[in-house]
Amino acid sequence: MTDIMIDADRLWSRQTATDKFGATANGGAHRMALTPEDIASHRLIADICLARGWALELDDIGNMFAIRAGTDEGLPPVASGSHTDSQPMAGRFDGMSGTLAALEAMEAIDDAGVRTKAPLMLAVWNNEEGPRFTPACMGSAVYAGVRSLDEVIDQVDADGISLQGCIDDLVTAIPEATARKLGAPIGAFLESHIEQGIELETSGHVIGVVTGMQGYRRWTIDVTGEDAHSGTMPISRRKDAFVAATDMAVALRTAFADDTDEMRFTIGRFEVRPGGISVVPGHVHFTVDMRHPSSATLRQQGNRIGEICREHAGPCTVDINEFITSETLEFPEDVRARLKAAADRHGYANQPIFSRASHDARHISRLCPAGMIFIPCKDGISHNEAESAEKEHCAAAAQVIADVMLELAGTD
Amino acid sequence: MTDIMIDADRLWSRQTATDKFGATANGGAHRMALTPEDIASHRLIADICLARGWALELDDIGNMFAIRAGTDEGLPPVASGSHTDSQPMAGRFDGMSGTLAALEAMEAIDDAGVRTKAPLMLAVWNNEEGPRFTPACMGSAVYAGVRSLDEVIDQVDADGISLQGCIDDLVTAIPEATARKLGAPIGAFLESHIEQGIELETSGHVIGVVTGMQGYRRWTIDVTGEDAHSGTMPISRRKDAFVAATDMAVALRTAFADDTDEMRFTIGRFEVRPGGISVVPGHVHFTVDMRHPSSATLRQQGNRIGEICREHAGPCTVDINEFITSETLEFPEDVRARLKAAADRHGYANQPIFSRASHDARHISRLCPAGMIFIPCKDGISHNEAESAEKEHCAAAAQVIADVMLELAGTD
Repeated sequence: MTDIMIDADRLWSRQTATDKFGATANGGAHRMALTPEDIASHRLIADICLARGWALELDDIGNMFAIRAGTDEGLPPVASGSHTDSQPMAGRFDGMSGTLAALEAMEAIDDAGVRTKAPLMLAVWNNEEGPRFTPACMGSAVYAGVRSLDEVIDQVDADGISLQGCIDDLVTAIPEATARKLGAPIGAFLESHIEQGIELETSGHVIGVVTGMQGYRRWTIDVTGEDAHSGTMPISRRKDAFVAATDMAVALRTAFADDTDEMRFTIGRFEVRPGGISVVPGHVHFTVDMRHPSSATLRQQGNRIGEICREHAGPCTVDINEFITSETLEFPEDVRARLKAAADRHGYANQPIFSRASHDARHISRLCPAGMIFIPCKDGISHNEAESAEKEHCAAAAQVIADVMLELAGTD
Repeated sequence: MTDIMIDADRLWSRQTATDKFGATANGGAHRMALTPEDIASHRLIADICLARGWALELDDIGNMFAIRAGTDEGLPPVASGSHTDSQPMAGRFDGMSGTLAALEAMEAIDDAGVRTKAPLMLAVWNNEEGPRFTPACMGSAVYAGVRSLDEVIDQVDADGISLQGCIDDLVTAIPEATARKLGAPIGAFLESHIEQGIELETSGHVIGVVTGMQGYRRWTIDVTGEDAHSGTMPISRRKDAFVAATDMAVALRTAFADDTDEMRFTIGRFEVRPGGISVVPGHVHFTVDMRHPSSATLRQQGNRIGEICREHAGPCTVDINEFITSETLEFPEDVRARLKAAADRHGYANQPIFSRASHDARHISRLCPAGMIFIPCKDGISHNEAESAEKEHCAAAAQVIADVMLELAGTD
């Protein structure tokens, strides 16, 4: 097999170039899916791919693909990529580092003049994060058929802007792209990502070969009481939705307390309405995100949520809606072995690692053999402007991706 | 003294006419201060006053006045009024019923052809509610010198619209108005308002003669932790501002529990940021509104808030800022006696009543003798679309206001 050497400086210059889209004052990224900033980052990547002579494709849910032709066009492409969108006021590496690792891998193979049998494909999955449009991992979920296009397409963001309109904006911004059919075959898929935890940092390893991915369940919970005047309405006669919702939040947190620290229970959104200083709030809308490596624990504990909320509703009513469930998954041994071998070959200290976060590779693994690698992320901090990753770790990831893409695509 | 009879049908037609400004689907009012809807309600009132030949005045903080000349122009006007703005998605009677009672009182006196010694003045105080611009009771506070104009004028609402720009819009909408100096003398001030409680409804009385007004203290509390990924960050390592803030909320509520049901402790605004479903929230901003009839209790209990919050901050930091303090006040006995006598004269069952809510009369009472009356409000519900008051109770209020305005203004 040809030895491919990725260009660490070029990769870092791509990172720096994309950092400017949605840059925050504190060095983070605020680049929610299909905002002008996110579309601008797509355009920059598209320009690089076009300069290489690669074909661009867009599908109906806003995923973007760049394809370097193979010698056997009957083979489905070997793909790698991640996403470009971020959480609000979040970090520069989540998603983008994996997208650029795949781009660098393909550029390095291109520079080496290697002709692969299967085409190579960069995949930029739309809306992995989900704060603007739901659900998270929307692009990969719809591509893989986990969600239908009809099920998600008719939505608007908090400002009333439609998802379809945003996808149209992306199409307009990338006029060179032709249409890719949702679910069109993929031969294999690799994704690099920052760990968003501290295992690699603690062990001093550069590459984590991801064994599998934690399952999760998510709920919206709506608590309804009655708005009232804060100066006049006696406490005893109130139907205070904030009081009920905070009682629920504390009871849930207490019920799911876990000495092993395996459980991830989070209330990340909690909206109190109407929100006046002198108004007893009549409504609270909040979300629960529960994740656990064990599908059995997740099933058992998650099933308690409705009862716990109802027990603490007081004079209010509560409506509970589970809107996402995803089982714990394991990546195929063959892909994991190839990723580990590539890391070993280059002397990157590595280890198996279990993914606590969910990624696009979860859904794409339904279509083809898939695998993931992680690189360290400073102090485990992610979804935060302080998120940080090292240049040499980003480069190591691109190198591993390049090696395994080439192996899987084959050469003449 | 001339007998004045107010016109209950005319008063109710004014109520119906103003109901349409910011009308909600459920029969409430969404008419925040100086929105186009609020300005439209000012314009309607201005037209009625202009048709009577009364002079219109506006001051620098957006209070509107309509003045019917007296025979002795050296006397300061005897005033009555309230406000036209509402809380978000709130009721039709809070503020507006008192404004229209004063208008009806002056129209009835005008219809009777009575010439008063002192001028009569309708006062429409700007921004009593406070959800759009702060503080609440802004117009009356600035007029009475409790706040300076400079202190409040440089603010923008949540959409970036400036208070000064909104006041300019009001001036543009009422071009007939001349300028009134902030703090210009007022001879006496009367305000009618819905009770926003259940005492009158329970006793079956039509008029409550307000003895005094509950003091209050308000704080903003900012809890700062660290944003993190909900799937990866172990609970033990989180700095979850939502967890800390809910612990504070529950601890505060527990600390201020009161068997006598006199304490009014409310968290009405509670904002969790960044608000992503899969993001451990790094920041919570919330407000505390505390009210109690006893200034001593309010002082003592309110002083515990900082300590309780700090004790429950966990790994987060907390910043506590008290931004309003207002002592319990008592209205002068002379004004209360006149209001009661007027109610008795017309056979309106009445009682003394203590005001749990705060009103513009609080501030204006610093400038002149002031008094208030309450009318029943269905089920005590206010700051809610379901707020409701009876036509005959609104009429009774206007009649009492008319009688006492006339007494205080004097006739030749």
